Amino acid sequence: MIILLDLDEVIADFEGAFLKTFRQRHPELPFIPLEERTTTRIPEQYPAEVIPLIEEIFTEKGFFLSFEPIPGALEAATKILEKGHQAYICTSPLHKSPRCYTEKYEWVLNHLGREWTKRLIITKDKTLVHGDILVDDRPEVKGIMQPTWEHVLYTQPYNTHVKDKRRLTWQEDWESILKI
Amino acid sequence: MIILLDLDEVIADFEGAFLKTFRQRHPELPFIPLEERTTTRIPEQYPAEVIPLIEEIFTEKGFFLSFEPIPGALEAATKILEKGHQAYICTSPLHKSPRCYTEKYEWVLNHLGREWTKRLIITKDKTLVHGDILVDDRPEVKGIMQPTWEHVLYTQPYNTHVKDKRRLTWQEDWESILKI
Repeated sequence: MIILLDLDEVIADFEGAFLKTFRQRHPELPFIPLEERTTTRIPEQYPAEVIPLIEEIFTEKGFFLSFEPIPGALEAATKILEKGHQAYICTSPLHKSPRCYTEKYEWVLNHLGREWTKRLIITKDKTLVHGDILVDDRPEVKGIMQPTWEHVLYTQPYNTHVKDKRRLTWQEDWESILKI
Repeated sequence: MIILLDLDEVIADFEGAFLKTFRQRHPELPFIPLEERTTTRIPEQYPAEVIPLIEEIFTEKGFFLSFEPIPGALEAATKILEKGHQAYICTSPLHKSPRCYTEKYEWVLNHLGREWTKRLIITKDKTLVHGDILVDDRPEVKGIMQPTWEHVLYTQPYNTHVKDKRRLTWQEDWESILKI
């Protein structure tokens, strides 16, 4: 099997790094904790005047390098290969942050090692990438193709309303769910 | 049709930018002009002691931004879309240059514009990307999959020995060759 793994919020904790920086830098402003997030894009839940402060964080040097791994994610990625399957990190760039391209590479190098950098695919349209399964936290992953993969949701608070897809977290028995 | 376009040596003149810098910086050293290049990778044609000088150029800030467009390439890319087809830039990173990820994005932004940055796919294994045609200068494009695309060679001096593939340059009637 070829298993495509989304990076942000599946392998790397984008939300956690953002919240940490935002709260440190703007302790006077209200923030949305992860459990109250209802949309895929963070800025959508903040007032318009706060969005430039959010984008400042997203685009600054080192932001994409600062993410902690999602607990269990690195072990899961390694386990997929150990079980004889193929795994790739299939990630979309953040439109406003050109730096994220190289920083995504460096994140994978730092946390998974050089061999995994060869398994990094950066594309806005994931439907163009061949695979059997895509593990992704977005409620819908769309593009120009009918994808070859089944979209398995990585459960996050903002996708719990989706009922028509299989779902997992690395804290569950994800191997049984993926049947690998 | 979905047409995947390799970036280096098909759209962007990697060889030209390298030679220009190498000759300026090391006028005392012999160099291999494009017409005498016989391998896909430049360092393979240079003596071992020169390779660090080559890699210094490949990895320095701005190198991937310094490429001139291959004549006719930008017009061809635009024409494919105008004719109602889909086109994507499908490029592999240079292993030794993490900077190339973001600089490839910036090159596309600078030369083709923001809409085209959404059409950028960076992957080591191009066989995982769905398409009808891949225009690429490498004699062989291999990966883990049987690709969906036909590999059409972009003619360069180091691939003229390949006889079993269709080929083109942007100076020829490439639209007839691609049947678009």
